Amino acid sequence: MIEGLYRRGLLGIADTPAVADFVKSQGWKLGVGRFVAGETLEDVLRAVRALHQEGLSSILDLLGEFIDTEAGAEAMTNEVLRTLDTLAQEDTERYMSVKPTQLGLGVSFELALYNARRVAERAAEVGARVCLDMENVPYVDGTLNLLRTLYGEGHHHLSTVLQSYLYRSMGDLEALLTLEPKPAIRIVKGAYRESEAVAFQDKRQVDDNYREMLYRGLEAGAHIGVATHDESIIRETEAFVRGAKAKNYEFQLLYGVKPSLQRALAARGHKVRIYIPYGEDWYGYFSRRLAERPANLAFVLRGLLG
Amino acid sequence: MIEGLYRRGLLGIADTPAVADFVKSQGWKLGVGRFVAGETLEDVLRAVRALHQEGLSSILDLLGEFIDTEAGAEAMTNEVLRTLDTLAQEDTERYMSVKPTQLGLGVSFELALYNARRVAERAAEVGARVCLDMENVPYVDGTLNLLRTLYGEGHHHLSTVLQSYLYRSMGDLEALLTLEPKPAIRIVKGAYRESEAVAFQDKRQVDDNYREMLYRGLEAGAHIGVATHDESIIRETEAFVRGAKAKNYEFQLLYGVKPSLQRALAARGHKVRIYIPYGEDWYGYFSRRLAERPANLAFVLRGLLG
Repeated sequence: MIEGLYRRGLLGIADTPAVADFVKSQGWKLGVGRFVAGETLEDVLRAVRALHQEGLSSILDLLGEFIDTEAGAEAMTNEVLRTLDTLAQEDTERYMSVKPTQLGLGVSFELALYNARRVAERAAEVGARVCLDMENVPYVDGTLNLLRTLYGEGHHHLSTVLQSYLYRSMGDLEALLTLEPKPAIRIVKGAYRESEAVAFQDKRQVDDNYREMLYRGLEAGAHIGVATHDESIIRETEAFVRGAKAKNYEFQLLYGVKPSLQRALAARGHKVRIYIPYGEDWYGYFSRRLAERPANLAFVLRGLLG
Repeated sequence: MIEGLYRRGLLGIADTPAVADFVKSQGWKLGVGRFVAGETLEDVLRAVRALHQEGLSSILDLLGEFIDTEAGAEAMTNEVLRTLDTLAQEDTERYMSVKPTQLGLGVSFELALYNARRVAERAAEVGARVCLDMENVPYVDGTLNLLRTLYGEGHHHLSTVLQSYLYRSMGDLEALLTLEPKPAIRIVKGAYRESEAVAFQDKRQVDDNYREMLYRGLEAGAHIGVATHDESIIRETEAFVRGAKAKNYEFQLLYGVKPSLQRALAARGHKVRIYIPYGEDWYGYFSRRLAERPANLAFVLRGLLG
């Protein structure tokens, strides 16, 4: 309740132009660097190397939202291609997350497919994998269609994401499990505001559906990305995979969120992949991280005052 | 911290003779019946039948502590034998928990062995199982020796208990797992006040050792009684046995503690066994239940005032 008020209040303030301008102008001084690896590709590669030295895997997430023009999608796609080319020079794992709207799904399915195919082909050339990230409900069908189409063309290095707060997701999971080879699937709870027409509103139902999707995916033998910071579910996953002697999973956490948990999971022998956001368009992402936890805001205020 | 103060404070008050006399005289009016099935064997059988109708299994626990004379042990042993004879007339499962000090372990090992053998033999005659319960540290070796001796004589219907707060328990578990057939083992966290010389004082260490003992026992194929009300560990156990497709476990909870959890676990398809205490010597047991949770005390105060 209080949490909800805090979250909505802060997101409201973050939407105020004066606040946005101020935070953007102060930038890194406010501690953006805790959650965003940097504005440039060089910044993000430094972060990747540091994580790999600690035994943590990575996936890059180029920030950028609300792309609704063909030119905007073209620019984002080129930036993704440039990142893939740069990753090709690195010894570390090459894995990138891309939002379908960045590829033009907000303009048309055809545009998104055209750009996603360019990305998939370049990734294949440089030995990289690409995750088609999941956005809000209007884009779920399009994203699954992109995955299915390109997967059918042999791009098995593509993965995607399902959100346990959507009623439809268990069905979407079953459909993905019919593909051969089974695609890697990242399971999240879901972070957009969705109506009760399409999504569970009760946290317990979201959590229970998360568990069911997780266990179903693991039992079916798909590679599952357990992408939650919920420590209860993480503990239960550890118990499940230990019981099943399963290897087809990894934990996925966000850069800068619960860093000690990230290290503890790796120390307990699990594969841990860190989502590393980077790019100039960090304001929206940063605001959501602050809205998640009052402690994160305190971190920023300390930066502001000190 | 507050919890600890509450607990110690209430146990201190419960030790006051005037309070003890008053509570004992008011007896059932104070809600003892929520946690203790009754004073007589007839009471407990009624409770057993009601639970079985709800799909819950049972184990009887004849109350009685601090037996330190041969005559006291003889009386308790006879009461246990009488209960076994009575259970023989019932259609329900026949399972009884016995504290080794009730059989005379506080007097001598030989006396306890003599009485435990009488109990084991009578149980074999009537098709019952008996759990040698675990008390505080001075009795751990004796209890394990009783189990090992009688088990060696072919009394495979005996089980015992290990407490995860003791440093030694993982070693005791490994030793029990060498027996063939492997004995059923009830795993608890431990409820006595033990020093840091012998027991973890940090809840997280007790919990982590609980998990390790649990998973080790399940993996080794012993039948494990998961005897905790800790809902995190219960959830993790559900995940483990689902992953392992294991059947060699049951949940064990105390009569009247978290009754909705008891039903929910049974509804989710798990075997659930309820520990049912009964007998005239209910005061100590009842005080500990109240000390566990302020909500339980409120329950009694309502009984007292209304």
